[in-house]
Amino acid sequence: MIKPDLKPEIRREAESLFPKSHRVYVRGRRFPDVLVPMREVDLSPTRHADGRVEENPPVRIYDPSGPWGDPAFDGSVETGLPALRADWIRARGDVEEYEGRAVKPEDNGYLSDSHAERFNTGKSERNRLKWFPGLMRRPLRAKSHPVSQLWYARQGIVTPEMEFIAIRENMGRAQQRDAAGARSNQLGFRHPGRSFGAAIPEEITPEFVRDEVARGRAIIPANINHPELEPMIIGRNFLVKINANIGNSAVASTIDEEVEKLRWSTKWGADTVMDLSTGKNIHATREWIIRNSPVPIGTVPIYQALEKVNGRVEDLCWEVFRDTLVEQAEQGVDYFTIHAGVLLRFIPHTAHRMTGIVSRGGSIMAKWCLTHHRENFLYDHWDDICDLMAAYDISFSIGDGLRPGSIADANDYAQFGELQTQGELTKRAWEKGVQVMCEGPGHVPMHMIEENMHKQLEWCHEAPFYTLGPLTTDIAPGYDHITSGIGAAMIGWYGTAMLCYVTPKEHLGLPNRDDVREGVVTYKIAAHAADLAKGHPGAQYRDNALSKARFEFRWEDQFNLSLDPLRARDFHDETLPQDGAKTAHFCSMCGPTFCSMKITEDVRKFAAEQGVDETEALRAGMDAKAREFQEQGSEIYS
Amino acid sequence: MIKPDLKPEIRREAESLFPKSHRVYVRGRRFPDVLVPMREVDLSPTRHADGRVEENPPVRIYDPSGPWGDPAFDGSVETGLPALRADWIRARGDVEEYEGRAVKPEDNGYLSDSHAERFNTGKSERNRLKWFPGLMRRPLRAKSHPVSQLWYARQGIVTPEMEFIAIRENMGRAQQRDAAGARSNQLGFRHPGRSFGAAIPEEITPEFVRDEVARGRAIIPANINHPELEPMIIGRNFLVKINANIGNSAVASTIDEEVEKLRWSTKWGADTVMDLSTGKNIHATREWIIRNSPVPIGTVPIYQALEKVNGRVEDLCWEVFRDTLVEQAEQGVDYFTIHAGVLLRFIPHTAHRMTGIVSRGGSIMAKWCLTHHRENFLYDHWDDICDLMAAYDISFSIGDGLRPGSIADANDYAQFGELQTQGELTKRAWEKGVQVMCEGPGHVPMHMIEENMHKQLEWCHEAPFYTLGPLTTDIAPGYDHITSGIGAAMIGWYGTAMLCYVTPKEHLGLPNRDDVREGVVTYKIAAHAADLAKGHPGAQYRDNALSKARFEFRWEDQFNLSLDPLRARDFHDETLPQDGAKTAHFCSMCGPTFCSMKITEDVRKFAAEQGVDETEALRAGMDAKAREFQEQGSEIYS
Repeated sequence: MIKPDLKPEIRREAESLFPKSHRVYVRGRRFPDVLVPMREVDLSPTRHADGRVEENPPVRIYDPSGPWGDPAFDGSVETGLPALRADWIRARGDVEEYEGRAVKPEDNGYLSDSHAERFNTGKSERNRLKWFPGLMRRPLRAKSHPVSQLWYARQGIVTPEMEFIAIRENMGRAQQRDAAGARSNQLGFRHPGRSFGAAIPEEITPEFVRDEVARGRAIIPANINHPELEPMIIGRNFLVKINANIGNSAVASTIDEEVEKLRWSTKWGADTVMDLSTGKNIHATREWIIRNSPVPIGTVPIYQALEKVNGRVEDLCWEVFRDTLVEQAEQGVDYFTIHAGVLLRFIPHTAHRMTGIVSRGGSIMAKWCLTHHRENFLYDHWDDICDLMAAYDISFSIGDGLRPGSIADANDYAQFGELQTQGELTKRAWEKGVQVMCEGPGHVPMHMIEENMHKQLEWCHEAPFYTLGPLTTDIAPGYDHITSGIGAAMIGWYGTAMLCYVTPKEHLGLPNRDDVREGVVTYKIAAHAADLAKGHPGAQYRDNALSKARFEFRWEDQFNLSLDPLRARDFHDETLPQDGAKTAHFCSMCGPTFCSMKITEDVRKFAAEQGVDETEALRAGMDAKAREFQEQGSEIYS
Repeated sequence: MIKPDLKPEIRREAESLFPKSHRVYVRGRRFPDVLVPMREVDLSPTRHADGRVEENPPVRIYDPSGPWGDPAFDGSVETGLPALRADWIRARGDVEEYEGRAVKPEDNGYLSDSHAERFNTGKSERNRLKWFPGLMRRPLRAKSHPVSQLWYARQGIVTPEMEFIAIRENMGRAQQRDAAGARSNQLGFRHPGRSFGAAIPEEITPEFVRDEVARGRAIIPANINHPELEPMIIGRNFLVKINANIGNSAVASTIDEEVEKLRWSTKWGADTVMDLSTGKNIHATREWIIRNSPVPIGTVPIYQALEKVNGRVEDLCWEVFRDTLVEQAEQGVDYFTIHAGVLLRFIPHTAHRMTGIVSRGGSIMAKWCLTHHRENFLYDHWDDICDLMAAYDISFSIGDGLRPGSIADANDYAQFGELQTQGELTKRAWEKGVQVMCEGPGHVPMHMIEENMHKQLEWCHEAPFYTLGPLTTDIAPGYDHITSGIGAAMIGWYGTAMLCYVTPKEHLGLPNRDDVREGVVTYKIAAHAADLAKGHPGAQYRDNALSKARFEFRWEDQFNLSLDPLRARDFHDETLPQDGAKTAHFCSMCGPTFCSMKITEDVRKFAAEQGVDETEALRAGMDAKAREFQEQGSEIYS
């Protein structure tokens, strides 16, 4: 994709978090107004022992931070982001603007306007109900057919969104190929991987994106009322993505904090963000978030519906739920988690679990079903929900309300019963032209993870899987980003398309900024480890570039190529704060005499001094010996 | 093992790090002076909605912290630990006391006594060469035959060490069985696991320990000159163990800090500790460490040998190395990492690697081999080394000097060539009666981890595998406890017996106290996740107990059962510091209305109010439906 004539038009210094990084944009070929943002890290040259200087090309990194990651962007959270996709959406000619639903006091948890006023009187500026002050657009909806990327894909149409994604996903590949071509370094080397049936091409074309979406194997969450969004794709033949949960609760946090968490989490690399707000001011908070979000926003609409009936689960009904869907659809939510697979007949199977039902949405629906002794109304109204979502291109994230909340409950009847139902619902949504992913667990010991993936692929017809962890043990509250990072990396390798992050505060409290950073970075590790294991053609380039820098004692480059440059630098500086140490050929771990990298350099130098011929001769001799060695195999020693 | 007549004699309140924990001891049946320490966590009762009060039995936890974890122990680091094993060792009648090697100035990195004096003059108290002031015993060595646990096991002898280990390893099993018997809770439930050929019995007998050691499938690192040690076992049919590296370097840290790191890391759960000190005062530091260590201490003797030849690799020779082995053997080092598998013929195969040779020991030996163009002298003197180690019962940790230092270099010819050689050396050591484990990588992407384990089992004849991580990506310096925790959990599941921890400072600097805590807890997670996945009969009990506490809002119990109670509590208190919140039936994540645990309780209560009959009827009906559902399988939806 990245051709000389498509060279970046803009190259801007990024600040603070990512030193020596620049924002670059790559222009589309098919759609010239497609401008794909990337972060490019400049590297210093290698100075070889023989005086030769080797240039190290910059490394491009996938960057979901949107205009907020571009130092030249002069917008503010009060105005929101530019409407990048507005023209693309309108150009398709299949949407209409309309008046839209009026915002009601109960959307923000108030009984009336005067209640809202009284409630907010005397509150500090920080905690008050605060309306988004920027431009409020009239909502769009479909005129006749579904306006989903799935629908377009099935018609054979390549949308600008698809080209945007193809360019984005190709990033590391071009570098990998360039490096493989240049004989001066080994950055092009990569392991073939084990893909578990995924088929990731060497080059992503817009047509490939289209075909994967048409097949239902990938989704592009992109509500037509969220034109600020930079398109991204979720599917197992693409880079593994991660989601960060934010949202205020009845107990803590404010609108400002949540908007900041959105920007913060995408800076660290979150690919989508779920707004799980509860309590007061849900509508207003969401407006601020969506208008400022370059990534897809997901929600769990039943949370707001429950607020509207004052927390009384028994009062939930289709009308309130539908009204909430319309409200959120018009705001621009990109995907809805809907727990329609929690069927009445599965609920008794949770009664003897170690930890019952741990999904909020799942327990709400279970309580509703039992109270009314009726089938889940979300299941009964599935077709209505599909029709509504097709009119805005909102994707499903079919909830796993019966996911296990402990190792003991993993892979049980209730969980798998719901998963089969998720498969049924997937098919029905596809028939209505709606994009679908399915949610998965939860708490699962390592040896039971693969079964989750296999069953999901089979029962849900390869719709993308989106899992929470899974946590591989229950005994480490305070470290559940790690217990779950293990499971996330594994299930990502097996084929899960998106990993929902878990922060160190899981089970204990609401994550703060540090927890969000820790959670996102941990999940970037899991996703990248999965990409490597799958043999993703664009993944290993960054590892190679960083390892080369490490080996050559290019400390600054090593820091700058890492997921968290400032932490890497801080840790280094704790023991060796002097500036000289960053050009030193050793580190505090071993000191100058014992540095193995230094010694390896000596080994190479020594070999070079002996002359290449001798080294080659040695190698040749050894190769013969080696073949003999291998041919005899383990028999030598047994 | 834990019978009424063996009830703990001592029960002491443990302080600070582990609230509501007590130290208990279980007495041996075969050897009455075997007293096995455990940590027991007291739990509060469950108060059911119907007023019923259910007692929750205390949970016993494997505890490697030694006397330092017993509040009644009144020793100090200046006197060192009591010689727990002294009588056991002497009772076997096969060792003799002798004069021992005199400590030389060069053992601590000085040219002469006067050099040492001059060097230390004016140094602050903290940084000065400081001799261990406690009792210095005359060393012991074998009189005739090897005095290794392997030798005894082969003679059919059950040693006190073996019974100690059997009791220790049975810990969770007894609880698991008790709970399974009691119908009142589900703590006895456990998943069967997938063992990859490991065969972990339902009960560990001293005879099973003996047989595994005799077979070479497990080792008991226990130098006869380290009588302070509390015996532990490393083998894939036992709990997965973890090692913590400590040790000063030429650049930073002092003796006091290293002794404190030893105590600190074992409090968090480190099963063995490696002293990787370099620079000055190596001998004195090691003496302090061993005299204060309840866990096996490992070293890499070539580091000290290199100090003795002033860092000039080319001056290394067998005589200096042998002298160092004797020095450390007499001090009581329990296992030696020796890089005898770095053969001359493998070295050229590292020249074109991304990161060459990254093992310190490996690069030292590679440089020596190339400089002299001779075979590795450790390989040539293997039999001599074995004879020496057999006389003290020092175990081998055969080094992997050619392990990959980057994803790009994983599983290459040099690495596997050395692994085959490790297998050859294993057989030869076994013939000499020496216990062996083999070291493994390193940096390996997820899909290439299993191959490491398979080849090691085959080529090294099931000798225990001891790996560093492996790190599953190179791109996260500052988070390498996590990149490696993923790989460690996986390879532990596949059969690795001990995992060498990696701290967040890996590649960047020397770990401080916080890094050690973070590294050890991360590796406890990896080891425990592996035990769960293998279906270890004693592992899941703790998860179940913690999950039950979580579900029942017994916050304090949840904290106290976790790997790091204080962190769990701190994180909880960040959002809800009030004491009342610790008995509240909700947390800050969701608030009271949305708490899914609360809702599940309501579901259960609701079901109970409807009468058991109805619930049962519902279940019965549903079961019929469910069978039908399953019989039709995925066909319904495809």
